[in-house]
Amino acid sequence: MILIAERINGMFKDVKQAIAEKDKQVIQELAKKQTEAGAAYLDVNVGTAAADQEGTMQWLVETIQETCSTPLCLDSQKPDVIAAGLKVVNAQNGLILNSAPLNKKADEEILDKYVEMAAQAGPKASIIALTMDKNGVPQDIDTRVAIAAEIVSKATEIGFDARRLFIDPIILPVRVPNAQVQPGNILAAIDQIGYLADPAPHITIGLSNLSQGATERSLINRIFLAMAVSRGLDSAIVDVLDEKLINIVATAEMLMNKQIYSDSFLKVYTAGK
Amino acid sequence: MILIAERINGMFKDVKQAIAEKDKQVIQELAKKQTEAGAAYLDVNVGTAAADQEGTMQWLVETIQETCSTPLCLDSQKPDVIAAGLKVVNAQNGLILNSAPLNKKADEEILDKYVEMAAQAGPKASIIALTMDKNGVPQDIDTRVAIAAEIVSKATEIGFDARRLFIDPIILPVRVPNAQVQPGNILAAIDQIGYLADPAPHITIGLSNLSQGATERSLINRIFLAMAVSRGLDSAIVDVLDEKLINIVATAEMLMNKQIYSDSFLKVYTAGK
Repeated sequence: MILIAERINGMFKDVKQAIAEKDKQVIQELAKKQTEAGAAYLDVNVGTAAADQEGTMQWLVETIQETCSTPLCLDSQKPDVIAAGLKVVNAQNGLILNSAPLNKKADEEILDKYVEMAAQAGPKASIIALTMDKNGVPQDIDTRVAIAAEIVSKATEIGFDARRLFIDPIILPVRVPNAQVQPGNILAAIDQIGYLADPAPHITIGLSNLSQGATERSLINRIFLAMAVSRGLDSAIVDVLDEKLINIVATAEMLMNKQIYSDSFLKVYTAGK
Repeated sequence: MILIAERINGMFKDVKQAIAEKDKQVIQELAKKQTEAGAAYLDVNVGTAAADQEGTMQWLVETIQETCSTPLCLDSQKPDVIAAGLKVVNAQNGLILNSAPLNKKADEEILDKYVEMAAQAGPKASIIALTMDKNGVPQDIDTRVAIAAEIVSKATEIGFDARRLFIDPIILPVRVPNAQVQPGNILAAIDQIGYLADPAPHITIGLSNLSQGATERSLINRIFLAMAVSRGLDSAIVDVLDEKLINIVATAEMLMNKQIYSDSFLKVYTAGK
């Protein structure tokens, strides 16, 4: 499981304050702790508060890179903010650009832009592609899978390997009733996206979004994560500092035979990260 | 989810001792506690220690029925022990005969015997049918699904509704490596068994068997249960006194849209049992 650590995000109070005060220590501590907990990538999101988003992205990237070499996941809906991060990021060990819809308007091929930036960043740069298009987030599963297919075909057409794509089927909060896009239906989408190419693209979700505003948040997140791993989900943006969540990932992968059972399978999993 | 409570089983020390000493209170306490915890059925298994298995089954059934009217699940591989229980059991609210393989020898149609006993016990009596036959437990998934298909077709041929069948795909301990019958493959079997008839048979598993001899037993049981519910598992023989396990069932069913989300969904689930 490719775990993308979610905590370096200006939406969290401590990070927001650290950005405002240019307090490197808070950011570097989070980078180290998340790396030790098993993060394959550290998500970097400036949040909405920073006036100079491009400068803030660069400051965050440089601050993290001073202290650890864990691959980063530059997280912004604005290509200019991603581009700013790209100027200073070290993509040698890996990089993800997070995230692009297929397109935003009929005449704006936003996916192409992200694919191009990733291609220029080097052979280890990937992108997270959202199953949404100019009409927004689809209100049904079939359209999501259709958009995922279009993303895969567009990327591979221009020579961008499907294995460098992380398709995100966009999970909605369980608290908001939506008959078409229930969590169970997202599982079906994950199933199907796994068959879009061979070798298949990665599939990722922003897990915490599922339980937005709900009670029993961790229980909901954990149970859904277990279900999704059993359908082929191989990546997620999560709180890697939640040890119980990591144990669930380890157990789910062991049950799906991605790790052999041994009496110390939980430790073996964490040690392997 | 149809929860079958596993604790009244002579394999557990306290029950074994209660049987030996004809101590009704231990049995009746377990019956009441498991009913309050949400058991739809109480499994009744005399274990292997009792010399008079038929008499012990009758004593257990009568002892439980003195104190509560929760439907019972008579659990024995010996038709004579089941038959003894049937003489005293009240099947008005429901009953399960647990469990029959398709057959044991080429000339012994054991499933037929259980179906016949269930049919005679009344319209609310069901059976748990194991996906095994004269060759024992199949070492692959396809054979299990094929046996399940034969079970469904045999039962319905003689007028026994598929909805009165609980098909058990037989989960093996994760600790014992078996390339063909990994837990992940059992999930695929559950998926397929759901399509064998319309309306579909129930699907059940003896969950605890999965973690036999393993470390992290409850974690393993819980994660697999969540995955299996997402594939259509609608029954399980479990420790209903494990409150966390019940919360996981409630969360899994809510995520699969079998229960609408509300802030008190855990309480709503337990109250509905």
